[in-house]
Amino acid sequence: MSQTKDTVVLAYSGGLDTSCILLWLKEKGYDIIAYLANIGQNEDFEEARKKAIKLGAKKVFIEDVRKEFVEEFIWPAVQANAIYEDRYLLGTSLARPCIAKKQVEIAKREGAKYVSHGATGKGNDQIRFELTCYSLYPEVKIIAPWRMPEFYNRFRGRTDLMDYAKKHGIPIPVTPKSPWSMDENIMHISYEAGILENPKNHAPDELFVKTKDPRTSPSTPDILEIEFKKGVPVQVTNLQDGTRHCTALELFAYLNEVAGKHGVGRIDIVENRYIGMKSRGIYETPAGTILHHAHLDIETFTMDREVRRIKQELSLRFSEQVYNGYWYSPECDFVRSCISKSQELVEGKVQVSVLKGQVYMLGRESPQSLYNEELVR
Amino acid sequence: MSQTKDTVVLAYSGGLDTSCILLWLKEKGYDIIAYLANIGQNEDFEEARKKAIKLGAKKVFIEDVRKEFVEEFIWPAVQANAIYEDRYLLGTSLARPCIAKKQVEIAKREGAKYVSHGATGKGNDQIRFELTCYSLYPEVKIIAPWRMPEFYNRFRGRTDLMDYAKKHGIPIPVTPKSPWSMDENIMHISYEAGILENPKNHAPDELFVKTKDPRTSPSTPDILEIEFKKGVPVQVTNLQDGTRHCTALELFAYLNEVAGKHGVGRIDIVENRYIGMKSRGIYETPAGTILHHAHLDIETFTMDREVRRIKQELSLRFSEQVYNGYWYSPECDFVRSCISKSQELVEGKVQVSVLKGQVYMLGRESPQSLYNEELVR
Amino acid sequence: MSQTKDTVVLAYSGGLDTSCILLWLKEKGYDIIAYLANIGQNEDFEEARKKAIKLGAKKVFIEDVRKEFVEEFIWPAVQANAIYEDRYLLGTSLARPCIAKKQVEIAKREGAKYVSHGATGKGNDQIRFELTCYSLYPEVKIIAPWRMPEFYNRFRGRTDLMDYAKKHGIPIPVTPKSPWSMDENIMHISYEAGILENPKNHAPDELFVKTKDPRTSPSTPDILEIEFKKGVPVQVTNLQDGTRHCTALELFAYLNEVAGKHGVGRIDIVENRYIGMKSRGIYETPAGTILHHAHLDIETFTMDREVRRIKQELSLRFSEQVYNGYWYSPECDFVRSCISKSQELVEGKVQVSVLKGQVYMLGRESPQSLYNEELVR
Amino acid sequence: MSQTKDTVVLAYSGGLDTSCILLWLKEKGYDIIAYLANIGQNEDFEEARKKAIKLGAKKVFIEDVRKEFVEEFIWPAVQANAIYEDRYLLGTSLARPCIAKKQVEIAKREGAKYVSHGATGKGNDQIRFELTCYSLYPEVKIIAPWRMPEFYNRFRGRTDLMDYAKKHGIPIPVTPKSPWSMDENIMHISYEAGILENPKNHAPDELFVKTKDPRTSPSTPDILEIEFKKGVPVQVTNLQDGTRHCTALELFAYLNEVAGKHGVGRIDIVENRYIGMKSRGIYETPAGTILHHAHLDIETFTMDREVRRIKQELSLRFSEQVYNGYWYSPECDFVRSCISKSQELVEGKVQVSVLKGQVYMLGRESPQSLYNEELVR
Repeated sequence: MSQTKDTVVLAYSGGLDTSCILLWLKEKGYDIIAYLANIGQNEDFEEARKKAIKLGAKKVFIEDVRKEFVEEFIWPAVQANAIYEDRYLLGTSLARPCIAKKQVEIAKREGAKYVSHGATGKGNDQIRFELTCYSLYPEVKIIAPWRMPEFYNRFRGRTDLMDYAKKHGIPIPVTPKSPWSMDENIMHISYEAGILENPKNHAPDELFVKTKDPRTSPSTPDILEIEFKKGVPVQVTNLQDGTRHCTALELFAYLNEVAGKHGVGRIDIVENRYIGMKSRGIYETPAGTILHHAHLDIETFTMDREVRRIKQELSLRFSEQVYNGYWYSPECDFVRSCISKSQELVEGKVQVSVLKGQVYMLGRESPQSLYNEELVR
Repeated sequence: MSQTKDTVVLAYSGGLDTSCILLWLKEKGYDIIAYLANIGQNEDFEEARKKAIKLGAKKVFIEDVRKEFVEEFIWPAVQANAIYEDRYLLGTSLARPCIAKKQVEIAKREGAKYVSHGATGKGNDQIRFELTCYSLYPEVKIIAPWRMPEFYNRFRGRTDLMDYAKKHGIPIPVTPKSPWSMDENIMHISYEAGILENPKNHAPDELFVKTKDPRTSPSTPDILEIEFKKGVPVQVTNLQDGTRHCTALELFAYLNEVAGKHGVGRIDIVENRYIGMKSRGIYETPAGTILHHAHLDIETFTMDREVRRIKQELSLRFSEQVYNGYWYSPECDFVRSCISKSQELVEGKVQVSVLKGQVYMLGRESPQSLYNEELVR
Repeated sequence: MSQTKDTVVLAYSGGLDTSCILLWLKEKGYDIIAYLANIGQNEDFEEARKKAIKLGAKKVFIEDVRKEFVEEFIWPAVQANAIYEDRYLLGTSLARPCIAKKQVEIAKREGAKYVSHGATGKGNDQIRFELTCYSLYPEVKIIAPWRMPEFYNRFRGRTDLMDYAKKHGIPIPVTPKSPWSMDENIMHISYEAGILENPKNHAPDELFVKTKDPRTSPSTPDILEIEFKKGVPVQVTNLQDGTRHCTALELFAYLNEVAGKHGVGRIDIVENRYIGMKSRGIYETPAGTILHHAHLDIETFTMDREVRRIKQELSLRFSEQVYNGYWYSPECDFVRSCISKSQELVEGKVQVSVLKGQVYMLGRESPQSLYNEELVR
Repeated sequence: MSQTKDTVVLAYSGGLDTSCILLWLKEKGYDIIAYLANIGQNEDFEEARKKAIKLGAKKVFIEDVRKEFVEEFIWPAVQANAIYEDRYLLGTSLARPCIAKKQVEIAKREGAKYVSHGATGKGNDQIRFELTCYSLYPEVKIIAPWRMPEFYNRFRGRTDLMDYAKKHGIPIPVTPKSPWSMDENIMHISYEAGILENPKNHAPDELFVKTKDPRTSPSTPDILEIEFKKGVPVQVTNLQDGTRHCTALELFAYLNEVAGKHGVGRIDIVENRYIGMKSRGIYETPAGTILHHAHLDIETFTMDREVRRIKQELSLRFSEQVYNGYWYSPECDFVRSCISKSQELVEGKVQVSVLKGQVYMLGRESPQSLYNEELVR
C-alpha cells in the first residue's frame, strides 16, 4: 500500500456490510470519505453520518439526489416505456448510475483516486456501479471488497462481520436480519435472496413496504388526471379533491402515495441477470406503474404508428442497456437522444382510475392528437 | 350478372346488417349459403338458422369452431406473448382467420366462387377476412357490400336498413341499438364506435359483459396453478377447491369464469388500425389475460436469455402480422414456426392469485428450469 | 370536368408518353404547366421546352435540382449506408421525392390544384411520387393516367401513342424504342423491362451507359483519398495527379467520372417491389458505389460498436422507407434524424483504389478514431 | 500439480508458439496429446506430427475436418448470407468452433480433463475456442498460457520463445517471421498485426496468397452456373469448358480455384472485436465471396419479401453470434434452425461471371421462383 494515504470514496449505506468495509479499508491504510446518497430510501441520515464519523471516516457527504433521479433518470425511462423482459420497471437499475455519478463527482472534487462499494460479486449492481465510474472517471481505481479473496475469505458470513464489528466497536444492528434483502429508493423497493430464492415460495404478506395489500386497500378508486408534455408528466390532478402537483418531485411523490394506498405496482418475477444467471425478484413500483400505463396511453394517442414501431425497438434496447448498467455508454446516449426526439409531440392529458392494485385508463385528450373522430365514424 | 346463378357463401351473423346483405345478394341474383361460426359468442344459433332460411338462404351452415380457435389460434398467441402495441391481446384479430378459414372450406366444398361479409370499409376486419380468403382460395371473388357504392349509397344508415328489412319481412330487432358496437368470441369482447368514439369519454359501467366490476368483485382471491408444456397450458388446478381442467376448451372456459368473476382483463386503449387511422377500443379478455401473465412467467423462467431476446422481437412481428390480418401469409407462417421452436422447453407450473382485476404471480417451478438456487446465493 | 379551367402541373420528360399525356390532359380541359427536373440525366432540355410549348403547355419550368439531390437526398443515404435488399443503392428511389418536391412547390406557387405523372400502375415510382405529393401538399389532386381505364383502354400500347402523337403533330421519336426502359439521374441509371424481363437473360454489352466494360477498362488503378466530415464526403483528392474537389456536386461528378472509367457500380438483381411483385433490374451507380464502400470504412473506423449495431438496424428501416417512397413520412424523418445524430463523429480520410469494376480500401485515418494501435498489439 | 499426470489436449499448429507451449506444459507435469486440425491450411502435416512427437507429445492426432467445416459451418453461413459489420465473411470465426469441437471429442474420448490453446489474450479466438469447449464439455478445464502471468512474464517476446526452443532442441523456424500474422483455412486467409496494425498503411502486394492480383489476373472471365437446393450449393458448372463439381468439398475447392485465379475476395477493413477494441484485418475469401453473391441472388429470387426481411434481421444476429464465438449457444442454435427453415424453397441456378476481382450476376432461374414475368409487364 502507498506511503502517503490514498483516499477512497466509499458508497456507504449505514448498514453492517459497508460499515465493516469502511473499517477494513482504514485498516488497509486508506483515508475514507463516506458517501451516502439520499435517493428516497427510508433512512436516518443523521444517524448514518454520526456512525460513519465514529467509524473513522475523514469526511462524510450525504447528498440529496432525489430531484436529479426523477428528472434525469426516471423521466427518460418513462419516455421510453422502459421495461425489462416485459415486466420489470428498472427501479434499481435507474438508481445506480445516479448514485455513482455523484460519487464520482465527489471523488474528482476531493482528489480521490479510489472509489469503493459493497455490492456482491454475483449481482447486477457491481456492474452498473463500475461501468458508470469508468465512463465518467476513466482513470479511477475501484475497490470491490466482495470480489477480493482477501476480504471474502475473511468475512465468510454475517457472523464474521458481526464479530468484526463488535471487536471494533461498530454499533451492531439490534433487529435480526430480515429473511430477504431489500433495496429502496423513491421509485421502488426490490426484495430478493433469503427465503425468496426458491422461486416456488410465495412472498409473505408482511414483505411489502411501499404498497397496501390490495385485499384490504380502499374499495373506492382515486381518479387522477395526468398531463404530459414531451412525454414527461408535468401535472397531476386528483379529480375528486382537486389536489394538484406540478414539480417533478412533488408529483412523483404524490403518485407514490396514491398508488401505494391502492396497492398498485407489485410484481413477482424471475429475471435474467447480466452475468447470466436467473434470479427471483419481487418489486414494488407504485408511481412508476401508473406513469408507465399513462405514458403508453398518451404516446399511442399522439405518435405516428410507424414512428412508434421503431421507437418500440429502440426502447427494448434502452431497457437492456439500463438493466445492464450501460447508462453512461455511447449506445445508451445515442438511444436516449433518439427516444427524446420521438417525444416532441407526446402531449396531452390522461384520466386514470387507481383501485385495488390496478390502473385503469378512462379517457385521454391531446392538442397533438392524431385521432380523427370524423374519420373513424 | 350471370345467367346461371352464382353461389355466395355469406358470413352471416344473424343481425340486421348481414340479414339485409343476404337479401340484397339474393336480389342481385345469387344463390346464398349462410355461414355462421360458433366461436363462443352469446348467440341463439337455432334462431339464426331459422331466420337465414326464412330470408331465402339455400343452405345454412352453423359451425362450432371453438376448439380449433383455442388450439390453433389462441395457443400460438399465448406462446408468442402476442400483444399489439403493448396492450391489446388480439382477441378479434385471432378470430377472423379462424372464421374465414372455415368459410373458405365451405365455399370450396360447395363449389361457390364467391364469398361475402358485412365488415365496413374502415376497419381491420375486412382486411383480415379478405387476406385469409385470398391466401387459402386465391381464385375466390369477394363481395364486400360496404365498400360498394351501389350498396352504401342505398343504405346510408340504420334507418335505411330497417326500412329494407321491414319491406322484405325481415324480423327487426326489438331492442334499441346499443350506443356502441360489440364483437364477441370465447377469448374476448371488443367495444367501439358510438359514444366511445370520443377518446375522452369514459366507458359506462354497464358496458362490460364478460367481467365483473372490480369494485364489487369478491375480496378473496382464487389461487390457481397453471401447468404448461411446450409453452401451452395443459392443466389448470384451483388450489382451494381442487377443481382441475385438462382439455384446451375446458381449461380456457374455466379461466374465463374465474377471471370474469374477479374482473380481470379490462383495457381501454387507442390503437393504430391497419389502414392508418387511430381508433379507440375497449376490450375484455379474461382468460387471455391470465394466460398472458402466466406464460410470460414460465417462459422467462425456462428460456435462455438470449433466445428470449430474439424471440421477443419475433413476437413483435407476429403481433403486428396478426393484427393486420396476415395469419395465412408466408411471413406469419415463418414466424410461427420459429416461435414454436422456441417453446420446446417452456414447461412447468405457475401459481397465480386472481383478485380485483389483477393477476399476481405467486411462484413457479419447472423440470426445465435454468434457475440455479445454489448459484444465486 | 370543371367549367373554369383547372391547372395541372405535369411531370414532363420530353418523351412520347408524357407528351401524349400532356395533350390528353389538354383535351380533358386542363391548363397544363409542364415541369421537367434536371436531375443529371442526359437530355436536351431546351428541345424539351420547345416541344412542351408546341404541345400547348401554358408554362414550362425546367428546374436544376442536382445540387439539392446530392446534398439533401444522396448524402443522407451515404450516411445511412442505405442499401435495399443488400444490393440496390436506391438511385431512383432517392430521386423521386426530390423531383416531386419541386413539382409540389411549383403547383403551390402557381395555384395549381392538380399534379400529374406518367408512371405506370405496376411500379414503385407512382407510389414514391404520390406519397411525396400528399405529404407536402395534402389537398392536391393527382391524375395518374396509366391507372385510369379511360386512358389505358385508349392507349393500349406504343402504337396507339404513336398514332395519337402523329394525329396531333407531336414530333415522333426517330430512333426505335430500345428493347428495355431506362431511368437516369446523376446518381445512377436503371434498366428494366423488355428483354430484361426474363431474369435468365443476360444483359447485352451495349446496355451500359455510365460505366465502361471492366473487361476493357484501364489496367492501372486510380488512387483517391476521400475525406468525410459528419459522415458526408467533403473532399476528394486524386493522389496520383493531385486533382481535388470540394463541393458536393463537383466531387460527386468527379467520382462518377473515375468510377465510370473503371467500370465500377454495375449490378444485376431481382428485387421485391413495393406492391409485392418481384422485378429484375440492372443498375449503374458509379460514384454511389465508391462512396458506399468508403463511408462504411470510415464509419466502422470511428463509430462505437454498439452504436453501429443500432444504427445498422435503423439503416435497414431507412432503406425500406426510401425504396417504398416514404421519404416525407414521420417515420423516415425520425430515422433520418437518428442516423444524422449517429454521424457526428464520423470523420476522417479513406484511401481507395478504383480498378476494373472494384473499389479497394487501402487505408484510413481519423482524428476521431477509436482505433488504439497500442491496445491491439 | 497433481501427482498422477493429468492429460492435456493441446491445439497444436506446428509453429513456434504452440511448440513452446507443448514443452512448457510437459514441464508443468502434464501428459500432452497434440491435436492438429487439417482445415485446409497450407501445412506439412507429417512434419508437424514428427515434431510434436519429438517434443514429447504422448499422442498426436491430425484430423481432416475439411468436409465437416464446409458442410456444417460454411453452408449455414451461406444460407444466412452471414457477414459481420457489412463486410467480413467470417472465415476464421466459422473455423474455430469446428476445430474446437474435434478437440473436445478427442479430450472426451481420451479421458483428458484439460485442453489448451495458443491464442492470445486480446483476440477473438480465445473466446471462440473456449466458449465451444465449455458448451460441449462443461466440466473441462482450459489452460490458456497467454493469459497466465506465469507464462507471459517468462516469454515476453519472440526472442524468449526462440531461446527456450533452442535450449530444448525445438527446431527453430529458418524463415524470418513475416511482418504480419496469418490464419488460413479452406475458406479464407486473414492477415493482421505487425505492419498492418497501423490502419493507414497499405497492404503490400506480396501479402496475398490465395488470390491473384486483379491488375494482372486474366482479362477474360470465367462463366459459372451455380445450382442451389435449400439454400446450399449442390452443383457448379463452368459453362465454357463444361467442368462440373457436385460434392461440397469439390465444388468449394473449385470455386476457390476460379475465384483465386481472378483475384476475387480481397477486403481490407477495420472491425470491432468482441472484447471491445477495433482491429485492422485483411482477408481473402475467394469461394466464399462468389457464394455470398450467388446465394443472395437466388434467395431474393425465390423468397417471399416479408420472410426475407425477418430472415435478414436474424442473419444480423447470427453473424454477430458467430463472430463472437457463440456457435454452440442456445441462441445460435435457435437462429440457425430459423434460418434453415427459411431456406426450404431457396432453389435454382445462378449464372455468374468472375473477372478481375469481381463477381457479376448474369441471370437466374428457379422452379420455385416467385417471379412472374407476365405480372411485371
